[in-house]
Amino acid sequence: MNILILHGPNLNMLGHREKKHYGSGGQDDLMDLLVETFPEVTFNLFQSNNEGELIDRIHAARDESIDGIIVNFGGLTHTSVSLRDALTLLPQDKIEVHLSNIHARESFRHTSLTGGVCRGMISGFGFSGYVMAVRALLENRETS
Amino acid sequence: MNILILHGPNLNMLGHREKKHYGSGGQDDLMDLLVETFPEVTFNLFQSNNEGELIDRIHAARDESIDGIIVNFGGLTHTSVSLRDALTLLPQDKIEVHLSNIHARESFRHTSLTGGVCRGMISGFGFSGYVMAVRALLENRETS
Amino acid sequence: MNILILHGPNLNMLGHREKKHYGSGGQDDLMDLLVETFPEVTFNLFQSNNEGELIDRIHAARDESIDGIIVNFGGLTHTSVSLRDALTLLPQDKIEVHLSNIHARESFRHTSLTGGVCRGMISGFGFSGYVMAVRALLENRETS
Amino acid sequence: MNILILHGPNLNMLGHREKKHYGSGGQDDLMDLLVETFPEVTFNLFQSNNEGELIDRIHAARDESIDGIIVNFGGLTHTSVSLRDALTLLPQDKIEVHLSNIHARESFRHTSLTGGVCRGMISGFGFSGYVMAVRALLENRETS
Amino acid sequence: MNILILHGPNLNMLGHREKKHYGSGGQDDLMDLLVETFPEVTFNLFQSNNEGELIDRIHAARDESIDGIIVNFGGLTHTSVSLRDALTLLPQDKIEVHLSNIHARESFRHTSLTGGVCRGMISGFGFSGYVMAVRALLENRETS
Amino acid sequence: MNILILHGPNLNMLGHREKKHYGSGGQDDLMDLLVETFPEVTFNLFQSNNEGELIDRIHAARDESIDGIIVNFGGLTHTSVSLRDALTLLPQDKIEVHLSNIHARESFRHTSLTGGVCRGMISGFGFSGYVMAVRALLENRETS
Amino acid sequence: MNILILHGPNLNMLGHREKKHYGSGGQDDLMDLLVETFPEVTFNLFQSNNEGELIDRIHAARDESIDGIIVNFGGLTHTSVSLRDALTLLPQDKIEVHLSNIHARESFRHTSLTGGVCRGMISGFGFSGYVMAVRALLENRETS
Amino acid sequence: MNILILHGPNLNMLGHREKKHYGSGGQDDLMDLLVETFPEVTFNLFQSNNEGELIDRIHAARDESIDGIIVNFGGLTHTSVSLRDALTLLPQDKIEVHLSNIHARESFRHTSLTGGVCRGMISGFGFSGYVMAVRALLENRETS
Amino acid sequence: MNILILHGPNLNMLGHREKKHYGSGGQDDLMDLLVETFPEVTFNLFQSNNEGELIDRIHAARDESIDGIIVNFGGLTHTSVSLRDALTLLPQDKIEVHLSNIHARESFRHTSLTGGVCRGMISGFGFSGYVMAVRALLENRETS
Amino acid sequence: MNILILHGPNLNMLGHREKKHYGSGGQDDLMDLLVETFPEVTFNLFQSNNEGELIDRIHAARDESIDGIIVNFGGLTHTSVSLRDALTLLPQDKIEVHLSNIHARESFRHTSLTGGVCRGMISGFGFSGYVMAVRALLENRETS
Amino acid sequence: MNILILHGPNLNMLGHREKKHYGSGGQDDLMDLLVETFPEVTFNLFQSNNEGELIDRIHAARDESIDGIIVNFGGLTHTSVSLRDALTLLPQDKIEVHLSNIHARESFRHTSLTGGVCRGMISGFGFSGYVMAVRALLENRETS
Amino acid sequence: MNILILHGPNLNMLGHREKKHYGSGGQDDLMDLLVETFPEVTFNLFQSNNEGELIDRIHAARDESIDGIIVNFGGLTHTSVSLRDALTLLPQDKIEVHLSNIHARESFRHTSLTGGVCRGMISGFGFSGYVMAVRALLENRETS
Repeated sequence: MNILILHGPNLNMLGHREKKHYGSGGQDDLMDLLVETFPEVTFNLFQSNNEGELIDRIHAARDESIDGIIVNFGGLTHTSVSLRDALTLLPQDKIEVHLSNIHARESFRHTSLTGGVCRGMISGFGFSGYVMAVRALLENRETS
Repeated sequence: MNILILHGPNLNMLGHREKKHYGSGGQDDLMDLLVETFPEVTFNLFQSNNEGELIDRIHAARDESIDGIIVNFGGLTHTSVSLRDALTLLPQDKIEVHLSNIHARESFRHTSLTGGVCRGMISGFGFSGYVMAVRALLENRETS
Repeated sequence: MNILILHGPNLNMLGHREKKHYGSGGQDDLMDLLVETFPEVTFNLFQSNNEGELIDRIHAARDESIDGIIVNFGGLTHTSVSLRDALTLLPQDKIEVHLSNIHARESFRHTSLTGGVCRGMISGFGFSGYVMAVRALLENRETS
Repeated sequence: MNILILHGPNLNMLGHREKKHYGSGGQDDLMDLLVETFPEVTFNLFQSNNEGELIDRIHAARDESIDGIIVNFGGLTHTSVSLRDALTLLPQDKIEVHLSNIHARESFRHTSLTGGVCRGMISGFGFSGYVMAVRALLENRETS
Repeated sequence: MNILILHGPNLNMLGHREKKHYGSGGQDDLMDLLVETFPEVTFNLFQSNNEGELIDRIHAARDESIDGIIVNFGGLTHTSVSLRDALTLLPQDKIEVHLSNIHARESFRHTSLTGGVCRGMISGFGFSGYVMAVRALLENRETS
Repeated sequence: MNILILHGPNLNMLGHREKKHYGSGGQDDLMDLLVETFPEVTFNLFQSNNEGELIDRIHAARDESIDGIIVNFGGLTHTSVSLRDALTLLPQDKIEVHLSNIHARESFRHTSLTGGVCRGMISGFGFSGYVMAVRALLENRETS
Repeated sequence: MNILILHGPNLNMLGHREKKHYGSGGQDDLMDLLVETFPEVTFNLFQSNNEGELIDRIHAARDESIDGIIVNFGGLTHTSVSLRDALTLLPQDKIEVHLSNIHARESFRHTSLTGGVCRGMISGFGFSGYVMAVRALLENRETS
Repeated sequence: MNILILHGPNLNMLGHREKKHYGSGGQDDLMDLLVETFPEVTFNLFQSNNEGELIDRIHAARDESIDGIIVNFGGLTHTSVSLRDALTLLPQDKIEVHLSNIHARESFRHTSLTGGVCRGMISGFGFSGYVMAVRALLENRETS
Repeated sequence: MNILILHGPNLNMLGHREKKHYGSGGQDDLMDLLVETFPEVTFNLFQSNNEGELIDRIHAARDESIDGIIVNFGGLTHTSVSLRDALTLLPQDKIEVHLSNIHARESFRHTSLTGGVCRGMISGFGFSGYVMAVRALLENRETS
Repeated sequence: MNILILHGPNLNMLGHREKKHYGSGGQDDLMDLLVETFPEVTFNLFQSNNEGELIDRIHAARDESIDGIIVNFGGLTHTSVSLRDALTLLPQDKIEVHLSNIHARESFRHTSLTGGVCRGMISGFGFSGYVMAVRALLENRETS
Repeated sequence: MNILILHGPNLNMLGHREKKHYGSGGQDDLMDLLVETFPEVTFNLFQSNNEGELIDRIHAARDESIDGIIVNFGGLTHTSVSLRDALTLLPQDKIEVHLSNIHARESFRHTSLTGGVCRGMISGFGFSGYVMAVRALLENRETS
Repeated sequence: MNILILHGPNLNMLGHREKKHYGSGGQDDLMDLLVETFPEVTFNLFQSNNEGELIDRIHAARDESIDGIIVNFGGLTHTSVSLRDALTLLPQDKIEVHLSNIHARESFRHTSLTGGVCRGMISGFGFSGYVMAVRALLENRETS
């Protein structure tokens, strides 16, 4: 199974950002955790601080053999109509993950334009949220 | 390990409600799934259509040996200051689950007063959301 | 024909509440009027000041032989997502009645969450509004 | 007894408008139904697509022998301060009727400037709403 | 000097409307007062309950010998973009008058779309407001 | 081919209105331009400053052989629920045109209630906007 | 003198709730303080986490010999139209008390639907607020 | 007859302020105009840039023989609850005057807290507005 | 013990203001009541209609031997950022008092900028509210 | 004549996006249509999913021989202040085109920051909208 | 060169206010710093807690030889229309300074009515902000 | 000392943009001015029209020897959550500069998401604002 993970602005800085919100592990630690937990899955991580590159990557995914997608667009989650439009192009199962509980932070982080076109959202569980999302993708595939 | 599941109004009607949002399984099916998946956990389900009884049950949990709590308060999620206040009385790990993706429905379902005092929220995965939540409670306990 | 009448908070106090809004008759007078006007109909009145009991009663109605429902949830009309969700579980013809003209009172009484899932609303006619609602239920049944 | 029925814009098109909201009967069918149901009442229907003509008609009603008024101002219901002002000139019993349930449609149809100066509102019962309104006018007259 | 007075909906009912807001005199009394007070002025009163006729009348004024205009559009004051647009076509001195103090009534009467394109507004002085407006037109003309 | 052009309040004053917004040509010039540009089309212009007459005209169009409709309701564009309702009665292709760019003027001109039930909107091109609209009607007809 | 004290959700947990807001004393300590301070008064405390039971209790108070009422409805203070309606049924002197200063906390605690139908509100003085309220009830009675 | 004129902040600078809004005359010119126009009236002008001194002056007016009051509180018109409260202490006839048309300027000048407790408002006529106000005071007195 | 009472605009007019809100006693009566009730306390009343003088007085209090402060800033309660800032300079116990129940009046009186930096608020008890406030200051001092 | 077409995010996916909104043709089809329809025009299409690249392209256009510009910034239309600022740098004739009728979709698509600095907007005509825009550019050039 | 510094409410308390926002230096320290840093400049500091006195001082500045003005109106910055109006009377170069970063504090401090009529604003640099402002005044003068 | 200057969209066009807002100097002129004024400082200018490249540049700054940062993100200032998040990663002293006075322009330029996480903001002084910012960085460093 192939899973694409899309990371938006500042997620390359995991491990260096406000630890009370994001924990102390970096993106590599996250990938190690996922690979170790799900040896049968091939993970493909794409991070960009650039909205346009994220849209390009989503477009490219149409021609790839990808079974599921996990998105965490950081600050773009709340304002990007274009990323929302791009996600609707992909027929695969999509899940939005946030490391921190977005409902418990500043009010400009409470809305999610991109989450509205995913299957569901997992928010507040740190790296475990990704593990939960991968499991949800795997289970969904088995049952469908 | 003991996990308390709190269900608010209309969740006793699972299996009979709008299937496109809530699926076709009932509360019993949910419990069977959890017990089967986590044989090492003792589950305690409390459902009430009554805000007051839910608050009473939360208060009672203070004197019980409960390791984690999963809440899904249905329509009260969005308006109950009292349930939010009650939850803050419990020191245990708390997770909010919604069967449907609340961000993709009517706008009066987009806010969560009760989710703001839980560790995180899982929304849109049907029964699997509960399995995810139990795992998150188990993992959190192991690491803490 | 069986008609269920659901009354929310403070409607047991009819006859004792602000008379310019609610008139001087009590709940018994209302029932006498309905029984007298529609001898062929069996009326079942359920009043509760408790949202949870109202939801329980709605759930129970699924297994009863009820042909039509008249609801007046009092102060809960304007805020209860849970009652709205419960009503959608019932396939029967549902009509919302208000004794006073809600559009001519305080602004927090102008919206109706529960009325949006009924067939229609009758507001401002005192007890006559119930007679109108019963007739509407009877006529609807004859034509369907 | 004389009853004046005032119809606003597009109500002359009844039977040709969106049938899921307005049903398939025309204005003539409505009048036939009323005349047949209430042979003792003289009905006077005035329809205009023109706010000014509706106001003129209301003014004229001051010097006529009219016992009750039923209003359905269509799209003007929600915005016309002038029709509201005109209605307050008439001492007779006034009832607002809407064929569709205005609380279950677009938000710009949820408010009623004109309904606030009538005795009550009946919304969502199609032609039956008019029958209900006539009965309410008749009963009110008998008791007063 | 020629002065055009434009009256909107319900102003033909002056003397019959809510006396605490509008006083007990009718439109004729107003005209008598003006003619008596300003014998040197020719007054031209145009009242219509119809927005379109008011706009037509404004257009016609372009080709007439009119020195000043007094407008009171009643309920249309607060919502008519079209009357506002029509007024901007007239180069003459324009004054808006309201019999009652619009700032002391319901909030939907506090804004004036049409007053924004007049020289000024006089509100709350009953018939005297018109006398004041005529004087202002006369004085303006003398000084210009 | 028959095209109906509906013009709302103040459009009969074209050529006399604020030239920076509306240009210097009148309604006749517009018609000359259209007739000259599209000799194969029969144009039918109806202008009224009166919302009710515009609605009447729309209703009449149901029984006429009209292939396409161009609407420019002037100040009524932004507030008339009734014109919107009337337009939905017509099955023909409808296009809204505005001479000026409504997005670059006062905020009360930014919304279009009537444009939401047309195929599209053309705004800011003066008379050329009408030529564009006619072409769009012609092309649509050829392809359908 | 008989005083009824009505406590809403979570007030049974006094002494266990966030101490910076609510202090460390429990409901029993509060009652001891009141009984000790006012030996001449009979206090009747009713606490419920259930809106419906609180309304029932208010209704029952109509037939009891009660001279004054102190209400603290906790989280229901801010949203319950039904409790507000119930309180208006009682002719006695009513005072609302809040242990914490509601104006200095989260914005969803700043409004009070129930306080608007009481004589006054005391907020921010912990248990002393109740002593102040009792004194106010006593003094009011002496002077009336 | 004694008339008190109350001027708020910056009105002492008349003649030096933005001339397109306020004209070129100073406060002295205004007083000369009034004295000349109404030789039978004693005018008492009080200007202060200080809200408190204006309130003091209003209080003092209670014990003076003043027959009418003209207020123009400048920038305080739009925000001062205290001046509004003070004005309600005076039983005399009160009129609010603004030199410029406040409805045609920045939106923060469109509301008038103080005008709501006066008999009426005159806005947009420069110094003539004061002459109009004096006449209105005189006429009111004669008729009462 | 020394208590400073700060009174804002119009409170010098107590006894002359709207009696249904403020009662019939004057400021002197209030002081007599306090001195009589609390002979052991030295009261210092400062009233000003002037925001600046109130701020000056607050600043001066820093160097005085004052044990507690009671504030009632009248109309400035709702808008003065500067008084709020000034109050935060004083370390003493501060209580806000309002004679009328501000939650039961116009909406522009519902917010309190100054109350947010006091210990608590007492609203709706007339002069008794001051007695309550003094007692609260005394008791607080004894326990601290 | 040289025309620059600027396409924002997701427009490279034309033909693959929701067909009810965007039709089934791709960007190439659009270009073929334009080249075929206007053989005398040189078209220059620039598409990017990246706001920054679009701004760079706009800047570069300053030094190119470009006679007119057609913009369709997709999801950036509604939020990008920077694109708006960039467009104001170009003196050429600019027209905004949208394939779908933005006034008939989700509310977050109703505003256009970038359209406010173009000559006009064409919305809802699919590829034909581009043909209309090119004609408008050509005609404008001929007449200027 | 003469520079006038205008300080609003509470700025006389510098050194005694919340140090995290305002630092520990007093107004004297500020003046010492300025005099020492700019020996060639004559500084004139005027502080008042009184809006009216600040306006008076601004008016007086019209007749003085002042080359530049620095304003910091404290809490009045956000609400005073009158101070804004007064500042527009002065032709000199005006700069607004805030010790703390107003964009990083409570939302009621985010707007500046008075800053909109100054040349620029400097916010968040403590006393250094004044040094920066003086330099800006000096430089502006040299270049003009 | 090393200072990083970050410039957002369109700032590469300085000298070519609206001169009344931005002056006539280009980015090179700005750098020349800074280098000349502060020969002891090494300036590093990074401009990009691309949000993502700006974020990348901020991330890179973590590993460079940079002593202070000046940001001017142009149109992204008002909407970019991601740039705000990125800035919080940098421990250095950060100052936001705007050439024009953002408080005196369109309302969509009044808010600053990025300025809230800087030390302060300087707005309205053209190039001098940068000189002021550099001085502030230098002084801050000396004192810390």
